[in-house]
Amino acid sequence: MRFDEAYSGNVFIKSHPNFEESKAVLYGMPMDWTVSYRPGSRFGPARIREVSIGLEEYSAYLDRELDDVKYFDAGDIPLPFGNPQRSLDIIEDFVDKVLAEDKFPLGMGGEHLVSWPVMKAVYKKYPDLAIIHMDAHTDLREEYEGEPLSHSTPIRKIADLIGPSNVYSFGIRSGMKEEFDWAKRVGMHISKFDVHQPLKEILPKLAGRPVYVTIDIDVLDPAHAPGTGTVDAGGITSRELLASIHEIARSDVKVVGADLVEVAPVYDNSEQTANTASKLIREMLLGWVK
Amino acid sequence: MRFDEAYSGNVFIKSHPNFEESKAVLYGMPMDWTVSYRPGSRFGPARIREVSIGLEEYSAYLDRELDDVKYFDAGDIPLPFGNPQRSLDIIEDFVDKVLAEDKFPLGMGGEHLVSWPVMKAVYKKYPDLAIIHMDAHTDLREEYEGEPLSHSTPIRKIADLIGPSNVYSFGIRSGMKEEFDWAKRVGMHISKFDVHQPLKEILPKLAGRPVYVTIDIDVLDPAHAPGTGTVDAGGITSRELLASIHEIARSDVKVVGADLVEVAPVYDNSEQTANTASKLIREMLLGWVK
Amino acid sequence: MRFDEAYSGNVFIKSHPNFEESKAVLYGMPMDWTVSYRPGSRFGPARIREVSIGLEEYSAYLDRELDDVKYFDAGDIPLPFGNPQRSLDIIEDFVDKVLAEDKFPLGMGGEHLVSWPVMKAVYKKYPDLAIIHMDAHTDLREEYEGEPLSHSTPIRKIADLIGPSNVYSFGIRSGMKEEFDWAKRVGMHISKFDVHQPLKEILPKLAGRPVYVTIDIDVLDPAHAPGTGTVDAGGITSRELLASIHEIARSDVKVVGADLVEVAPVYDNSEQTANTASKLIREMLLGWVK
Amino acid sequence: MRFDEAYSGNVFIKSHPNFEESKAVLYGMPMDWTVSYRPGSRFGPARIREVSIGLEEYSAYLDRELDDVKYFDAGDIPLPFGNPQRSLDIIEDFVDKVLAEDKFPLGMGGEHLVSWPVMKAVYKKYPDLAIIHMDAHTDLREEYEGEPLSHSTPIRKIADLIGPSNVYSFGIRSGMKEEFDWAKRVGMHISKFDVHQPLKEILPKLAGRPVYVTIDIDVLDPAHAPGTGTVDAGGITSRELLASIHEIARSDVKVVGADLVEVAPVYDNSEQTANTASKLIREMLLGWVK
Amino acid sequence: MRFDEAYSGNVFIKSHPNFEESKAVLYGMPMDWTVSYRPGSRFGPARIREVSIGLEEYSAYLDRELDDVKYFDAGDIPLPFGNPQRSLDIIEDFVDKVLAEDKFPLGMGGEHLVSWPVMKAVYKKYPDLAIIHMDAHTDLREEYEGEPLSHSTPIRKIADLIGPSNVYSFGIRSGMKEEFDWAKRVGMHISKFDVHQPLKEILPKLAGRPVYVTIDIDVLDPAHAPGTGTVDAGGITSRELLASIHEIARSDVKVVGADLVEVAPVYDNSEQTANTASKLIREMLLGWVK
Amino acid sequence: MRFDEAYSGNVFIKSHPNFEESKAVLYGMPMDWTVSYRPGSRFGPARIREVSIGLEEYSAYLDRELDDVKYFDAGDIPLPFGNPQRSLDIIEDFVDKVLAEDKFPLGMGGEHLVSWPVMKAVYKKYPDLAIIHMDAHTDLREEYEGEPLSHSTPIRKIADLIGPSNVYSFGIRSGMKEEFDWAKRVGMHISKFDVHQPLKEILPKLAGRPVYVTIDIDVLDPAHAPGTGTVDAGGITSRELLASIHEIARSDVKVVGADLVEVAPVYDNSEQTANTASKLIREMLLGWVK
Ligand SMILES: [Mn+2]
Ligand SMILES: [Mn+2]
Ligand SMILES: [Mn+2]
Ligand SMILES: [Mn+2]
Ligand SMILES: [Mn+2]
Ligand SMILES: [Mn+2]
Ligand SMILES: [Mn+2]
Ligand SMILES: [Mn+2]
Ligand SMILES: [Mn+2]
Ligand SMILES: [Mn+2]
Ligand SMILES: [Mn+2]
Ligand SMILES: [Mn+2]
Repeated sequence: MRFDEAYSGNVFIKSHPNFEESKAVLYGMPMDWTVSYRPGSRFGPARIREVSIGLEEYSAYLDRELDDVKYFDAGDIPLPFGNPQRSLDIIEDFVDKVLAEDKFPLGMGGEHLVSWPVMKAVYKKYPDLAIIHMDAHTDLREEYEGEPLSHSTPIRKIADLIGPSNVYSFGIRSGMKEEFDWAKRVGMHISKFDVHQPLKEILPKLAGRPVYVTIDIDVLDPAHAPGTGTVDAGGITSRELLASIHEIARSDVKVVGADLVEVAPVYDNSEQTANTASKLIREMLLGWVK
Repeated sequence: MRFDEAYSGNVFIKSHPNFEESKAVLYGMPMDWTVSYRPGSRFGPARIREVSIGLEEYSAYLDRELDDVKYFDAGDIPLPFGNPQRSLDIIEDFVDKVLAEDKFPLGMGGEHLVSWPVMKAVYKKYPDLAIIHMDAHTDLREEYEGEPLSHSTPIRKIADLIGPSNVYSFGIRSGMKEEFDWAKRVGMHISKFDVHQPLKEILPKLAGRPVYVTIDIDVLDPAHAPGTGTVDAGGITSRELLASIHEIARSDVKVVGADLVEVAPVYDNSEQTANTASKLIREMLLGWVK
Repeated sequence: MRFDEAYSGNVFIKSHPNFEESKAVLYGMPMDWTVSYRPGSRFGPARIREVSIGLEEYSAYLDRELDDVKYFDAGDIPLPFGNPQRSLDIIEDFVDKVLAEDKFPLGMGGEHLVSWPVMKAVYKKYPDLAIIHMDAHTDLREEYEGEPLSHSTPIRKIADLIGPSNVYSFGIRSGMKEEFDWAKRVGMHISKFDVHQPLKEILPKLAGRPVYVTIDIDVLDPAHAPGTGTVDAGGITSRELLASIHEIARSDVKVVGADLVEVAPVYDNSEQTANTASKLIREMLLGWVK
Repeated sequence: MRFDEAYSGNVFIKSHPNFEESKAVLYGMPMDWTVSYRPGSRFGPARIREVSIGLEEYSAYLDRELDDVKYFDAGDIPLPFGNPQRSLDIIEDFVDKVLAEDKFPLGMGGEHLVSWPVMKAVYKKYPDLAIIHMDAHTDLREEYEGEPLSHSTPIRKIADLIGPSNVYSFGIRSGMKEEFDWAKRVGMHISKFDVHQPLKEILPKLAGRPVYVTIDIDVLDPAHAPGTGTVDAGGITSRELLASIHEIARSDVKVVGADLVEVAPVYDNSEQTANTASKLIREMLLGWVK
Repeated sequence: MRFDEAYSGNVFIKSHPNFEESKAVLYGMPMDWTVSYRPGSRFGPARIREVSIGLEEYSAYLDRELDDVKYFDAGDIPLPFGNPQRSLDIIEDFVDKVLAEDKFPLGMGGEHLVSWPVMKAVYKKYPDLAIIHMDAHTDLREEYEGEPLSHSTPIRKIADLIGPSNVYSFGIRSGMKEEFDWAKRVGMHISKFDVHQPLKEILPKLAGRPVYVTIDIDVLDPAHAPGTGTVDAGGITSRELLASIHEIARSDVKVVGADLVEVAPVYDNSEQTANTASKLIREMLLGWVK
Repeated sequence: MRFDEAYSGNVFIKSHPNFEESKAVLYGMPMDWTVSYRPGSRFGPARIREVSIGLEEYSAYLDRELDDVKYFDAGDIPLPFGNPQRSLDIIEDFVDKVLAEDKFPLGMGGEHLVSWPVMKAVYKKYPDLAIIHMDAHTDLREEYEGEPLSHSTPIRKIADLIGPSNVYSFGIRSGMKEEFDWAKRVGMHISKFDVHQPLKEILPKLAGRPVYVTIDIDVLDPAHAPGTGTVDAGGITSRELLASIHEIARSDVKVVGADLVEVAPVYDNSEQTANTASKLIREMLLGWVK
């Protein structure tokens, strides 16, 4: 007596009802308690699912349909409000299980700090892991006003764990001078302002390696993603971001997990940000889950 | 590997996973294609579920908890866009099945026309049915600009079917002169402007009878429900509507089905209308499903 | 080849196409350049017309239909942006002409200062004029930061012209101490907080007199009229305002002109304020134009 | 006593008061009852007119003024809510009359299905008609969930009527695999993603032919047109769309009619979409009506 | 060369530039990291200050002017994002200092948890302290999903500290059954639904005692305060809340501190909630600081 | 006892507390009374300051930090509502004083007319002044509907004062034919549509000259700046505007003052326009104040 869930907006469109048979697992990480500016990304994953019913099931870019890849939508991980550490532990735990079943973890944020435990979990499985990071911000702080758990720190944390030379940031247009200096000093790659062109140059160097891709929706210009916590002018278009996803799909890297974070619906009455995010998730699924 | 659905916002909070064991069935009727003014109520049911996670599970009014009543949330009935007749047939079919299983149908609209097939179905089961109708509008038109299927006609249709003297409207503040005249002529009850006080007087007359209650959210003043298609100043407060629901709960009528319609989230950025609707649904469940 | 304008939203619903045959003339005064807080009321009149298509043509309060009173909608008076004095002169000119034709002037603002030239014009015709003023604010300032032309001054100006004892304010909840003191000193009537009850007491004293009624939409509580420049908590309900309009309709005063001002649509995405204003205009037409 | 309508926002700015003397006829088709996602485009035409008062009357692109072309604004065609077939018949009828008077029909939607009866009417007059279609979506479905009358079908319907090889789609980025396959199979032209460049290549082939241009505002990226039913990331800029309109204006095709559809104001509080649409209408008038 | 700050919106209107000479200290507590539903109240205090420029400086209720009471606006206390415990400690520290200078602490939230350290600090100074709490919610939880620091716990914490019989809650309409049961069992006072009437009855019992008043803006009906995290239908009007503040002002209790919390501007595009809050702050200043 | 103002949102982030020691003075000109379309820019400067707390203090474009340039934020100049002439006089007076102290005036509007008295003041100090003007609109009218003080006239006024050949407009896409003709006739430079490329060509010609730069935010496409009075499709990206600011910074002109005008927050719920404006202000400070 329950209507077909695949088109209900309760799960991402066409998601598979069965975990075991699925190749990828979609999950939400509804946490926004460490953000320094505008909160609200806790509601991102639910809204992305809801608007996914407006998507076509076919990608005219990749000539592939959602029927071609089985993915399970696990829903939003219940997280304890206001407790960053416990939240991160719960996320890591969940991703450990997803990886143990050899499934592709595809996460939706939530603030960017949620990527930290995910990347940690992925690194445990893939010791030669590289990170591709698309963002307006460096996210390389060690702490924010005394707090080591902050949405401005996840890339620093993973760089410290896997070595800065394995981390590649793209589209960066904001950060502290200290962050840029640190990156240069320790040999971490940062492409300022652009994503597609520098990515094209970097990808061959990563050929054959397992790669985790973390996309902060604010890498898009505010025109294309007003619904996020920290909008920052001068970003890329959704067209460039789509092209970048397709570039990775066509490359020789092996994407082993990914996320899309920082969608905060309340700042976007038109819901274009959530709609764009749902299209990006579709392209990530169709392009990266093989 | 799926997180507990009861608190996900995908189903109404704490709804029971099992249809068979449930006493009531909650379902959405996401149709808004015949409205004469502002569309958007197709998204009402989904938003009501989503915000229901902000509800307490206990009613301080009725001293009863959601755990005390088992209800199944069937989701939104898939309806063919732009085809009123087929949509109404599908709704009637569904409610027939719910009633055949002796479960309490609790519908969420969608435009008010969706109540028509539901009331028809309920009437088939309960021939001595009475209707309690709360609305800003008479909804007694025979047609709207030539269309007999219009959101301004459901009460006329049910009155024609079960006899106007079995229909009781409350809170009415808008309609054509012809509608008020017709009601008077045929002996249908209309209480203008108020709901609670006249309801108190009418309920004893309906003691023991099966009653279907249809609530158009626009019976509330626009201050309390800006998120609806046709806002109309001079309405009642949410406090009066809550008191009216409780009055019915305490009365000797036997509520055999109910609905809450015309919630159109896009006109209410604060989401107070959907939040209020979710509280009303909780009180209807706790007060009327016995 | 032009579709029926009466239901187009370009004119107030059902307005009569012919000026000469009409008893009342509806007109907009799209000026907001002297407001001290939030501008935007220049768009009030157009939006009130636009949403009037959602109105019923019949008043269930007054048992009268729009067909029973002929009114012409002259549109918005073109006013020179940023020039208060010239704007006021143009308004006065226009209203002089309306009154010369013995028609009932029904104005829509725009900021409250637009009422000043209208009241002046009406006073020229009716030397024994009384003013009924409903507002959250006293509007009795002589100037605002040095400017004698300000939306906070119209009631002071008319009081100075026709004598303070002929001015009756209702619903007032904000003003400078000096304004309240001045009113008391010069014998002007101010009813604080309430409208309907004090109006009931005052109306008999005004029996037989020509009365101009000026309603600032902010007399309503912000809950009922969020779309205005200066929202002020603690106001009356739309229900009380409707009752007050009806009270005047039933009284023995002779309403010779009226206005509804300060509707600023941009602060109300739900458009409840404009919808409420359009209902108020309908009731003013049906109740006061005889 | 009515103020100059040309700047009132009730008609498109500077529209001519006289039908007979006009070369073009502007009209609204306020229908949105078959849309599968977000309704609201019924209010598009009225809002486009309203904001047109913010337009300059001169095009700095075409060096032409609105005074150089006479157009009549007929207003919105009254359509029966919720009845697609009757609505389409009424539209076809109206356009038949416009064409019989040898005037250029310039329509504003409403959902895209309204273009179907218009194109049918134009085809009756111009049997060698070609269609230029700009859209994010193929709109080539035969039906949507069982309904042959759907906003996702108009291009298929016209292709079936005039032959697929006479239909040219541009900017397409979404559709079912079956739609793209069908187009390829039957020889219909689809340019994916881009508009201006492929248009430049196609236009010479259409030289001398009568062409109807139908523009779905969602061909624009959501950044440029958030106010539409189905936003879809990765679209073109308003600058490219303007250039495309100008490209057609400079070409040797004979534009015999056109429309701009799917503007849904409620999803865009900034009203940029309606403002952009009004500029597009101005450029279409100045560039295509000769 | 800096313009007069008193009317800048950077400080609460007319606040005194000098801390030492002031009787009261206004301060913001911009924390929202433990909320279980919609975040955003961190921006409440700044917005309340900003809109305070729209206030009259005179209270027509209390016949007192802002010039009659000197208050210093300290600004927002800088708090570490995402760290509840450190945030609470910083708040307590600050209030300790305010109290040490014998000034009246008037706080603006932020989520309700910020009241906990304030009340603790006040209790250290006034051991016979009583609490008056106005809220839609009991806020008596011991923890929320395992977290003892949650916006649903502050009243429980203070009740545990000063004894439940010293805590008086008003307007409560939501909570867990366990919370209501606990209150009854331990002798804490809860008035359900209403505020003014029960307050009138309780105040004489508190005569002469030092009282801290904590107001959660959601005690207002969502119609009057849509801009808050957890809207809950069936609340009181702003008029009743104003009357309640005035009732306390006229009573024989000695208000020794107060706060107004949970204003979340992003959910209220009309800014009525912030405007109402600023009026409430004015009345609290004029009524309670003696 | 006042918290550090530099991060409060009351002043632009990191602004210096001391006027005398500062090189630049930031000030708001909160006037919008002559605008012909949508008002609201009076609230622009305050909102730009408020959101500046979301900015990084370092520019990844210019490799310079806000600590490297001392600027004082004077707040908003108090202006008399509805009196353009007095407002302009007050602005001119203020800027005279800033210039007398040899500080760089950096203004925030407000409507574009506020630039007129500023440019006049700057011209008094720098008789060989050139103007760089970025805007969607020519702003070359002599009057608007009879009013010589209008937001559509400032560039004409300054051109008349300093000679049209000293005025360089960029990005222009709207205006009257007469304005473009006048510019051509009198030898004023207008670059249509683009900014960066033509600026690159013009800058060498201005080498060594004192230049005032006035930026109307509507030079940006509405996608990048929906929050402005007159949105006009077909504009430049924020990326191009940033590049243009940097181009000027690297050039040999001597920027002696600048402004950014027409930010109207109410039309942009996402606040992307104010956020973008605050980033632009940072880049203007870091790039032009030497
Ligand atoms: Mn990030
Ligand atoms: Mn970021
Ligand atoms: Mn109804
Ligand atoms: Mn209704
Ligand atoms: Mn007033
Ligand atoms: Mn007022
Ligand atoms: Mn289409
Ligand atoms: Mn489309
Ligand atoms: Mn609380
Ligand atoms: Mn609460
Ligand atoms: Mn300008
Ligand atoms: Mn401009």
